[in-house]
Amino acid sequence: MRMYDIIAKKRDGGTLDRAELEFAVNGFVAGEVPDYQMSALLMAIYLRGMADTETAELTEVMARSGDMVDLSAIEGIKVDKHSTGGVGDKTTLVITPIVAACGVRIAKMSGRGLGHTGGTVDKMESVPGTRTSLAREEFFAQVNRIGISVIGQSGNLAPADKKMYALRDVTATVGCIPLIASSIMSKKLAAGSDCILLDVKTGNGAFMKTLEESIRLAQAMVAIGQHHGRKIAALITDMDTPLGLAIGNSLEVAESAAVLKGSGPADLTEVCYQLAANMLLLAGKGSLAQCRAMAEHAVESGAAFQKLKEMFAAQGGDTSVLDDPALFARAKYSQVVPAPQSGFLYATDTEKIGNASVLLGAGRLKKEDSIDFAAGIVLHKKAGGRVQAGEPLATFYAEDEARFAAAKEMFLSAIRFADKAPELPPLVLARVTAEGVERF
Amino acid sequence: MRMYDIIAKKRDGGTLDRAELEFAVNGFVAGEVPDYQMSALLMAIYLRGMADTETAELTEVMARSGDMVDLSAIEGIKVDKHSTGGVGDKTTLVITPIVAACGVRIAKMSGRGLGHTGGTVDKMESVPGTRTSLAREEFFAQVNRIGISVIGQSGNLAPADKKMYALRDVTATVGCIPLIASSIMSKKLAAGSDCILLDVKTGNGAFMKTLEESIRLAQAMVAIGQHHGRKIAALITDMDTPLGLAIGNSLEVAESAAVLKGSGPADLTEVCYQLAANMLLLAGKGSLAQCRAMAEHAVESGAAFQKLKEMFAAQGGDTSVLDDPALFARAKYSQVVPAPQSGFLYATDTEKIGNASVLLGAGRLKKEDSIDFAAGIVLHKKAGGRVQAGEPLATFYAEDEARFAAAKEMFLSAIRFADKAPELPPLVLARVTAEGVERF
Repeated sequence: MRMYDIIAKKRDGGTLDRAELEFAVNGFVAGEVPDYQMSALLMAIYLRGMADTETAELTEVMARSGDMVDLSAIEGIKVDKHSTGGVGDKTTLVITPIVAACGVRIAKMSGRGLGHTGGTVDKMESVPGTRTSLAREEFFAQVNRIGISVIGQSGNLAPADKKMYALRDVTATVGCIPLIASSIMSKKLAAGSDCILLDVKTGNGAFMKTLEESIRLAQAMVAIGQHHGRKIAALITDMDTPLGLAIGNSLEVAESAAVLKGSGPADLTEVCYQLAANMLLLAGKGSLAQCRAMAEHAVESGAAFQKLKEMFAAQGGDTSVLDDPALFARAKYSQVVPAPQSGFLYATDTEKIGNASVLLGAGRLKKEDSIDFAAGIVLHKKAGGRVQAGEPLATFYAEDEARFAAAKEMFLSAIRFADKAPELPPLVLARVTAEGVERF
Repeated sequence: MRMYDIIAKKRDGGTLDRAELEFAVNGFVAGEVPDYQMSALLMAIYLRGMADTETAELTEVMARSGDMVDLSAIEGIKVDKHSTGGVGDKTTLVITPIVAACGVRIAKMSGRGLGHTGGTVDKMESVPGTRTSLAREEFFAQVNRIGISVIGQSGNLAPADKKMYALRDVTATVGCIPLIASSIMSKKLAAGSDCILLDVKTGNGAFMKTLEESIRLAQAMVAIGQHHGRKIAALITDMDTPLGLAIGNSLEVAESAAVLKGSGPADLTEVCYQLAANMLLLAGKGSLAQCRAMAEHAVESGAAFQKLKEMFAAQGGDTSVLDDPALFARAKYSQVVPAPQSGFLYATDTEKIGNASVLLGAGRLKKEDSIDFAAGIVLHKKAGGRVQAGEPLATFYAEDEARFAAAKEMFLSAIRFADKAPELPPLVLARVTAEGVERF
């Protein structure tokens, strides 16, 4: 077998078989297939596409390039969740304790933030003392003991994806549904959960900008999970505006705790209930309505908040900040951004709002960048709301006053004002399962 | 400017401008643009195509990546010729002396053989003593003195093409008309002649297998030449069967000399007259009919053969082998291949016949391979001819008897026999100029 022939086959629109995918991917990981051949193949895949089974096979080959986590040491059904990333997306910290409080195991590996999107591991580390890197035995033991652990991705999970993604990132081959789907799902397959709920963000702050694109990505990922015997579904959720009011690591932890205490923003609360209910549904806890009720009860009873604290405590975190977010280390500087004019507000560019928070120090432009846990943005007005000129739009937080000017310029360039209240999309736009697409 | 954006633009079907092409090509030559980005761009070009002006710009950028040969030190009109390569294609050694004998200057750089196709420089070197690497001054002086010199390509002619071709060769991006056309034409532009005649081979022994593909390639190259102010035309010539009877280096030189002495095979002689006439036409020597008559007269008068000998003599070659090919060093072994059955002969796979000659030692599989000048094949029957079982089909020549078996198997697998005389395509199938396509 020759890489040349594999490239030529895909170039001409052919379907690669398992042996060909293994040759290409494993050869690339082993350094036997050079970068320049893999990038030619990736561009051919980008422009020629992949068949569903071919994508599923690619995903498995990528998953098997490293450790396949065996969660059988944990009793019961394990549910995983993945978000394609957004601005202010702190749902993992809300829904995993809800689901665990309802008796379904969460043994989850999460990522760090990059670019305009945040990452759960960074948010968790803003709670002083929290360890996100646990040995496998400790991870399993914690889940068996308290039902939940969320940690960073271990080193050798789907190394093929890591190496392929780095190449896609510099060869303009990222935005391709079979490649995005196999990248995400290879890590989910390797991470070993029985059930997977996907949260595919859609809109100007998401990777997928349109509903149709988002549905296609969700369908591709659901098909892969299905092919490999996992229970899987996807919600398409709105990212035309940030989720909740807080953007930035400790700010988002505080907001997550507020939702679990029953006092979070309505949009975030509702999205979290729908996500949690769908996770419980996948785990076989009842009908969707029953699962929704269970999730609400877990919050109202305080059990979910208790579970959040248990998890942080088990991983060494100082849970006093969850009880009282005022105990979080504060940013050295804050600045209120007033509305430059009156009108109905809508965020036209959520990615820019995410980038403004990066400029404040809350995120990373490059993987090596360090972040300020206390930096970020708290919105005072959300899309659809009416504002008077001079009223506070948002408060910025940073360790360095010099960061405010550029962040403010970026932030204001993302906001538009309208004379009439804008029509807002639903928070959850569609639900995708193996059976089909349900639009809301 | 970023290579990423250039790749993305082409990926999405955009047209790259001059600055973008310069950034990509010059950056690649300088080692600033890595292989993996260039191979992604090449695959995007392969699948998205290029606009005519874009191809012309790419060609000029590639040509200007190295020396642009200035032939102004040579008086008069200089005509170049390029063949896309075939089996038994020794036309350069026939037509350049004809054209030079008619008073048009030939200052030509040729290539070496690779794979199933031969190269003029190798053939010339089979004449003992011949130097194909001349300093620029000596090259110019020889052309000014005797009107002709054919040498190997100098080191720094279109280095971008050399580097890009090496990458295309391993990333399945060779067979793409804009890339083939810019590769060939970048060297032709850099080589500096005023007029260029292209010999685009078509058929199973050629790179382009169909007439329509060959016409499209010819049109692309003619458009490039036209864009850059060169007089240019292309003949589409048949390569469904080897040209002439000899395949192999000294065997082909002997056959070329025979054509110039008026005793060559009819097919080769006719193709050479048409090519030579078209070169003379481009050089403004008269109407096509007048140019044809001039070419025939140059052969009949002996002037063209004399010019061939003059060229070899000027480059140190022993011309006695041209007068009497029996003086060529002979292959140690020869073997007659008899017809395995009776019938009308046609070569169904000319590429295989070329590969059989490579197996005998006449060609190279890799650039580093050495070749046996005396090795090769002399056909006794050509496509269309009738043969009786046991009659000699061909004679093989090799330095090592062990080479015969595999070569014979390859050769016979390429030959088919029919009950009726096959219909043969015309030797010259079409003529392509800036004005249009004339089919014969």
